[in-house]
Amino acid sequence: MAQKLFVEEIQNYVGGKWVSSRGTAFNELTNPATGERLGRVPQGTSEDVDIAVKAAAQAFPAWRDTPVPVRARHLFDLRNVMEQNFESLASIVTQEHGKTLSEARGSVRRGIDCIECAAGMPTLMQGNALEDIAADIDCIEQRQPMGVFAAIAPYNFPAMVPLWFMPFCIASGNTMVVKPSEQVPFSQRFIASLIDQLKLPPGVVNYVNGTKEVVTRLCEHPDIQGVSFVGSSHVAKFVYERAAATGKRVQALGGAKNFIVVASDCNWERSIPNIVESCYGCAGQRCLAGSTIIAIGDAYEPLVSKIKAELKNLKLGNGLEDGVTMGPVISAAHKERVLGFIELGIKEGAKLELDGRNVNVDGHPKGHWVGPTLFTDVNPTMTIAQQEIFGPVMCVLRAKDLREALAIVDSHPLANATSLYTQNGATAREYVKRVPAAMVGVNIGVAAPMAFFGFGGSKGSFFGDLKAHGADQVRFYTNNKTAIYRWF
Amino acid sequence: MAQKLFVEEIQNYVGGKWVSSRGTAFNELTNPATGERLGRVPQGTSEDVDIAVKAAAQAFPAWRDTPVPVRARHLFDLRNVMEQNFESLASIVTQEHGKTLSEARGSVRRGIDCIECAAGMPTLMQGNALEDIAADIDCIEQRQPMGVFAAIAPYNFPAMVPLWFMPFCIASGNTMVVKPSEQVPFSQRFIASLIDQLKLPPGVVNYVNGTKEVVTRLCEHPDIQGVSFVGSSHVAKFVYERAAATGKRVQALGGAKNFIVVASDCNWERSIPNIVESCYGCAGQRCLAGSTIIAIGDAYEPLVSKIKAELKNLKLGNGLEDGVTMGPVISAAHKERVLGFIELGIKEGAKLELDGRNVNVDGHPKGHWVGPTLFTDVNPTMTIAQQEIFGPVMCVLRAKDLREALAIVDSHPLANATSLYTQNGATAREYVKRVPAAMVGVNIGVAAPMAFFGFGGSKGSFFGDLKAHGADQVRFYTNNKTAIYRWF
Amino acid sequence: MAQKLFVEEIQNYVGGKWVSSRGTAFNELTNPATGERLGRVPQGTSEDVDIAVKAAAQAFPAWRDTPVPVRARHLFDLRNVMEQNFESLASIVTQEHGKTLSEARGSVRRGIDCIECAAGMPTLMQGNALEDIAADIDCIEQRQPMGVFAAIAPYNFPAMVPLWFMPFCIASGNTMVVKPSEQVPFSQRFIASLIDQLKLPPGVVNYVNGTKEVVTRLCEHPDIQGVSFVGSSHVAKFVYERAAATGKRVQALGGAKNFIVVASDCNWERSIPNIVESCYGCAGQRCLAGSTIIAIGDAYEPLVSKIKAELKNLKLGNGLEDGVTMGPVISAAHKERVLGFIELGIKEGAKLELDGRNVNVDGHPKGHWVGPTLFTDVNPTMTIAQQEIFGPVMCVLRAKDLREALAIVDSHPLANATSLYTQNGATAREYVKRVPAAMVGVNIGVAAPMAFFGFGGSKGSFFGDLKAHGADQVRFYTNNKTAIYRWF
Amino acid sequence: MAQKLFVEEIQNYVGGKWVSSRGTAFNELTNPATGERLGRVPQGTSEDVDIAVKAAAQAFPAWRDTPVPVRARHLFDLRNVMEQNFESLASIVTQEHGKTLSEARGSVRRGIDCIECAAGMPTLMQGNALEDIAADIDCIEQRQPMGVFAAIAPYNFPAMVPLWFMPFCIASGNTMVVKPSEQVPFSQRFIASLIDQLKLPPGVVNYVNGTKEVVTRLCEHPDIQGVSFVGSSHVAKFVYERAAATGKRVQALGGAKNFIVVASDCNWERSIPNIVESCYGCAGQRCLAGSTIIAIGDAYEPLVSKIKAELKNLKLGNGLEDGVTMGPVISAAHKERVLGFIELGIKEGAKLELDGRNVNVDGHPKGHWVGPTLFTDVNPTMTIAQQEIFGPVMCVLRAKDLREALAIVDSHPLANATSLYTQNGATAREYVKRVPAAMVGVNIGVAAPMAFFGFGGSKGSFFGDLKAHGADQVRFYTNNKTAIYRWF
Repeated sequence: MAQKLFVEEIQNYVGGKWVSSRGTAFNELTNPATGERLGRVPQGTSEDVDIAVKAAAQAFPAWRDTPVPVRARHLFDLRNVMEQNFESLASIVTQEHGKTLSEARGSVRRGIDCIECAAGMPTLMQGNALEDIAADIDCIEQRQPMGVFAAIAPYNFPAMVPLWFMPFCIASGNTMVVKPSEQVPFSQRFIASLIDQLKLPPGVVNYVNGTKEVVTRLCEHPDIQGVSFVGSSHVAKFVYERAAATGKRVQALGGAKNFIVVASDCNWERSIPNIVESCYGCAGQRCLAGSTIIAIGDAYEPLVSKIKAELKNLKLGNGLEDGVTMGPVISAAHKERVLGFIELGIKEGAKLELDGRNVNVDGHPKGHWVGPTLFTDVNPTMTIAQQEIFGPVMCVLRAKDLREALAIVDSHPLANATSLYTQNGATAREYVKRVPAAMVGVNIGVAAPMAFFGFGGSKGSFFGDLKAHGADQVRFYTNNKTAIYRWF
Repeated sequence: MAQKLFVEEIQNYVGGKWVSSRGTAFNELTNPATGERLGRVPQGTSEDVDIAVKAAAQAFPAWRDTPVPVRARHLFDLRNVMEQNFESLASIVTQEHGKTLSEARGSVRRGIDCIECAAGMPTLMQGNALEDIAADIDCIEQRQPMGVFAAIAPYNFPAMVPLWFMPFCIASGNTMVVKPSEQVPFSQRFIASLIDQLKLPPGVVNYVNGTKEVVTRLCEHPDIQGVSFVGSSHVAKFVYERAAATGKRVQALGGAKNFIVVASDCNWERSIPNIVESCYGCAGQRCLAGSTIIAIGDAYEPLVSKIKAELKNLKLGNGLEDGVTMGPVISAAHKERVLGFIELGIKEGAKLELDGRNVNVDGHPKGHWVGPTLFTDVNPTMTIAQQEIFGPVMCVLRAKDLREALAIVDSHPLANATSLYTQNGATAREYVKRVPAAMVGVNIGVAAPMAFFGFGGSKGSFFGDLKAHGADQVRFYTNNKTAIYRWF
Repeated sequence: MAQKLFVEEIQNYVGGKWVSSRGTAFNELTNPATGERLGRVPQGTSEDVDIAVKAAAQAFPAWRDTPVPVRARHLFDLRNVMEQNFESLASIVTQEHGKTLSEARGSVRRGIDCIECAAGMPTLMQGNALEDIAADIDCIEQRQPMGVFAAIAPYNFPAMVPLWFMPFCIASGNTMVVKPSEQVPFSQRFIASLIDQLKLPPGVVNYVNGTKEVVTRLCEHPDIQGVSFVGSSHVAKFVYERAAATGKRVQALGGAKNFIVVASDCNWERSIPNIVESCYGCAGQRCLAGSTIIAIGDAYEPLVSKIKAELKNLKLGNGLEDGVTMGPVISAAHKERVLGFIELGIKEGAKLELDGRNVNVDGHPKGHWVGPTLFTDVNPTMTIAQQEIFGPVMCVLRAKDLREALAIVDSHPLANATSLYTQNGATAREYVKRVPAAMVGVNIGVAAPMAFFGFGGSKGSFFGDLKAHGADQVRFYTNNKTAIYRWF
Repeated sequence: MAQKLFVEEIQNYVGGKWVSSRGTAFNELTNPATGERLGRVPQGTSEDVDIAVKAAAQAFPAWRDTPVPVRARHLFDLRNVMEQNFESLASIVTQEHGKTLSEARGSVRRGIDCIECAAGMPTLMQGNALEDIAADIDCIEQRQPMGVFAAIAPYNFPAMVPLWFMPFCIASGNTMVVKPSEQVPFSQRFIASLIDQLKLPPGVVNYVNGTKEVVTRLCEHPDIQGVSFVGSSHVAKFVYERAAATGKRVQALGGAKNFIVVASDCNWERSIPNIVESCYGCAGQRCLAGSTIIAIGDAYEPLVSKIKAELKNLKLGNGLEDGVTMGPVISAAHKERVLGFIELGIKEGAKLELDGRNVNVDGHPKGHWVGPTLFTDVNPTMTIAQQEIFGPVMCVLRAKDLREALAIVDSHPLANATSLYTQNGATAREYVKRVPAAMVGVNIGVAAPMAFFGFGGSKGSFFGDLKAHGADQVRFYTNNKTAIYRWF
């Protein structure tokens, strides 16, 4: 049985020590499924950031001179303590966020994948060299670390998202300040406690908790070289602009409205559970969640009827309990937001096939429950087809052919991920090539690139050029230094 | 003998046609060596930009569907017409900019290098693929073109700088709007006329002339995916911020204050001419020009005396004439600016060893002449050691050892290029590793990475993450689309 | 109209000069379509090889010190003269080999593709570098040229195959001895004459004509670093063994028996002409030619009937003439060999649907004509399903499902290329992943990797590890030199 | 205190089980420092090989279908058990081979490095992809595993050398048969026992012990795809030829005669201990051991006198004991061989400065002791300057300048590693570029490329093209499958 999560006050982890925030304001945190109080997190101050950046900056010179394989070896150690504490961490994720234990485990695995990938830094970080670029002249391009970087994380993947960045950042020789989401700070606090057991030099990894003031200061601090951000498009755009205005590198991953296109030649039996999982997994709170399903031609009727049947298999509840397949949404405020969208959908004329508004879960009257909700007869201009709901609400649209489906998808300002269900190679090729979203699943509802490929969207879903994790992440955290040698 | 340059009014080249600016204001242009009128260039309007972007956007769909090797083949053609018109283009560069014909030829060669490199697009643009990333699942990451990009060029390399970008941009499947410098628009106009002879589809490459309004519109136009900029750090920062605020990719190369560190064990005979060429070549108007020489320990005395001797070999004059080794600065206004710095240097106590203020060139009374100028006893905090002078002014500083030299270099907010003169491997390794500048020459005064390596500085000299030309340029102009396949 | 090909005696091109063979034996060569005498080619001697290797070895030191971009520029020049003489070269290919002018043009284009790819050598040849592999220690891995390489070519692509190797070999800094096929030496002689117009230093590229003695000496010459070979599997294996026994690098591309698998869900209309072209193009004399068609389940009947209909469109004749779609086979001896296989097919019980044995072409009584031949009811163990016929003979087999088709393909000792016709993504994925052939076409009958990807098969079709052209070719022609630096 | 090594009879580890050899002949093994009996090892039979290959072949299909990250995770596990048993393994290495514990630890660390590097297989194994290589046609090049590979190891690094291959081989999806050296089978037996504790599927890694019959069968077995070999040049050449003759891939690393060139401007204080360690470390039994020192000009006298002084610090003895810096040679036979070379050196006129022939180590009368031996006045044609002695014998030669030194080095048929001692950048550049050896140390006596770079020599020291470990190793163990897709 999972240990009960409780930490009276989350501290920052700075320079290898646990320190209290200089601020005096706190947010109270509760388990979204049970309403139990989990502790409190400081809202954070600019001074908190400054202290952490200073620690990170001080750690940098010795850390960058640490040989690459030695730096990488710390990640092997980190990977091991993560594996040893795998279940504890998954359980913390479930308790602070609400997602099921199975979903939590999956996310922790994805986080460890990133550590494993970044442990290959001696390969990943190699630069290029060419002899005789001119008479008796050689050129060597090394990838050098730059200094202190910041990572700012969203609430939906408490353990995983910072691990998209931190392992790559430090293994490439930088130091880092991580800001966990103020809604789910416990997983990162736990990871910090694991790091604290390692022999990583103090200041290489630092955690600062907080809200907007902390984010703003991280974007503006003159000693920070770059910012990795994941969150809403609105804040991503703010971070991109603000950090750019202070001359920093930025990669800012924003929100999504992911379309799933279903062709009538798809394998229904295997596709339907996959589509349902895409839309309702993590209660729809994933930047890769499918939310808007476009049925092509004849696919519409079977799609709707099969989805409805499949939805009966979902079991809402406390994610720690066996058999539960969908947890609550993150907070009362977010629940209100999701319900608001459902009401808008009704008002705008979509057909509400399944209504998740007034559901209860026995024994958990304080949970932020929203049941699986299904709209059909949705058209592309409705608010529910335009806005990111980030809840368990699926909207089904029609398109007469692939071209029309692509036009609908193309007209949306966001372009994070998308999926296509078909058995036909030509359909897949055309869709994958043309669709603006940069992460595409063919018969896969959640097209999450693994740690060794880049992760990130297009258009309003991504700001910057180098994507998260994979080889791009190493490029983001390093500066190519080109030296041209002529000896005489 | 070079043909005399004259074009009454520079037009834009848009959608495969020469069109007049919608604006009514013009700048008059003269040959900086002779004062002869060369013609006029429109100041440009937002509407000019909109028309060009529209043409580029219309050309994009068909161009991106053109197979990669076919696109690359257009660059082979471009390379050929460039070679055939090599001398004409070099002569235009000299006439509009003032640099010597030899310098002009060198810059045209560097531009062609970029075309040659980008012609390897079928190799450069390859993405990655991995089978069995999970059970029966494969992942394929393609680099896709994105749409319309803009390139904004400075006056100091009229022919070359846009070629850092355009060949890579179009060969990777995008279309482009190039804004030449309004001070030197003739070389790009000539290149546009060469492109016009090719079979490149209309709209793939467009040229829009203008000044600040055009730059601002390029940064803000919603249909532009990204901006490549080269110019002063001040404007680079403006472009980075403004283009980021509209969600674009940006790579903005700014100004420089390049340090040359000279150790007493250097090979004097070969180093001195190289150092002089670095500082006075192109009359100091290069972002890679050495300008601030730090002599380590005993190197100071021989350095100064040998530089003084070498400077006698420089011959100021019209760059078209044989034997001339240094041309004028670009304009009367810039001459005033350079002279102002010289006066500041005197006022702040540096020792003026050679004074280039009141030089004349026989037969060219209207030329913007500044003779080679040498300051010694300069200290790092003087204005002439801090500001980018961009003229033929060398400042010599002292450092007691390499560590102090590095500290001086490190304290400067810009970090574009730097050079070191030594015969010692350990000195070179330490300097190359530690110095913040991202382009480093060892016994090379102008550390310009060739077309197949990235070009760009650090700190205040570069904004963004992906450098100009080389493999980075292809990354900048393409979006990685990651498709995950499971067939059932 | 094409110029008539005639060269009384083919000479070697060695050290920048045309020289006669030291041997006294010659082969007479005729146009396989018309029987007209084209000239004669020496059988070649070991001494011829020795002279050429010596010239190549002498040219090496200066050539390897020529800067990479300068070397690459020679390929831009070569590309230009190839383009300027494109039609002449294609016509020579047709006259010496017999394939149609259209086929000849395609092969010349593929050859030029390789020159274009290899012109990207400054990118392709870059090695790797990593700072701080240990305390104060850096590692730099440069790709260095090795010396003299040999390329030995087959008769079926007179112009193209040596261009798979030579451009990569020389641009990477090596020098080369090319041995054209003694059956079709004219195209390479013509290319040598084009090279002779360039400014390539003498000895960088050399051509030696001959037969077995020349091949053997090239495999055994102590000053040759490696051998690139394309030909029959029998000789490929000989070359691999013999060149390995003298310590050389070897890449030896052998013969093929390429299977085409057709699923009943394929797009018949577009697939059939493509399949026919695969099998009968170049009169079946391609190492990528389809020859053994496996129809899955229901596909058999429509396949056979549609193929038979399509074959009516083929027009046998002199490849120089308009409208001709299939030329003769290379020689009288080869015609006898092909006819022998047809007879064996009949004898072993296959059903001869179309008999190409006794065809005539008006006006060309001396041509080596074999008409399109079709066997059905072929089973996998028949000689015609086992042996490489290398003629216009298609054999159709049955398989009940994809698994059985894969089993048939898998049981064959050769595994060069293969094709699959289907619209189904799952079928394609399974086939591509499982099939042993290393070049796979999905709905493409001739799966020839382009110049920027590697070319080569598996099992008995390829000996070595690094494939022809593409990045592998550069690896084959260079040796990684790893230098580890510690300065004290 | 290290546990005493004793295993009565070494078994093979095949298909996840310990099995006895089918053979009846055994070699007796003793501790080379103490003479104590360690056990016995079978001489092995072809049948032993066949059984192991069969097990490996059976394991292949399921293993290659195991997702790449899952395969890689087994290496993380292997790395962990290796770390946990680090000291035990080092102690076994010392006991079976004789080298000091410190040397043994270094070699085990190098072995683990390879596991760590190969754990990055999801990055290392990525192939390439390009969209639109032609109209509507895409190309995807996947790196696929091939089946069963063999690794054949030498006696000088009992634990390490098989780890150059095995982790890369299995992580890329192949299965492997490892043949440890019959002189030192205990380390690999111990590693097999660690693997046995993991969840690696049976048959993925197999160990077969034996001598020449086993080697020959591994080279010739039809179901083995390729052979990785490390040993003497004589056997390497045999393996290259024999394995090539059966159509296999081969990489065969042979012997060495490594030159160390010393310039008079070197840092003597730090260079001398490093040179001594290079020559006498592991009692000279390293393929990277320096053995032939070329002093340039004035460097000769100080070099000889300083080396002589430094040699006094060496302490011969049982490698398990504290303070010992040099162990015995591997066997009585090898001792005789080394002594023979010393006698030859004397006979041919070299000056014997230090004689290691009649040394004793207290308490270990049965050890195979050869003391540090130093020859000066050696000339390049003497046998001791030509043959690989593989013992603690240093030969000092003279050269008047770098050019002459390079000429001496260049004239030797082997070219594995080399080192240069200088402080001068120009000397280093010239030497590194020109010297034929493919592994070069600048101020580093043992230029061993780390796991993430390729390892291997040139000329007679290496047969094949793809080097050991690093990215090349992945290329060696995978076949590029190029699929070309056109969907219609």
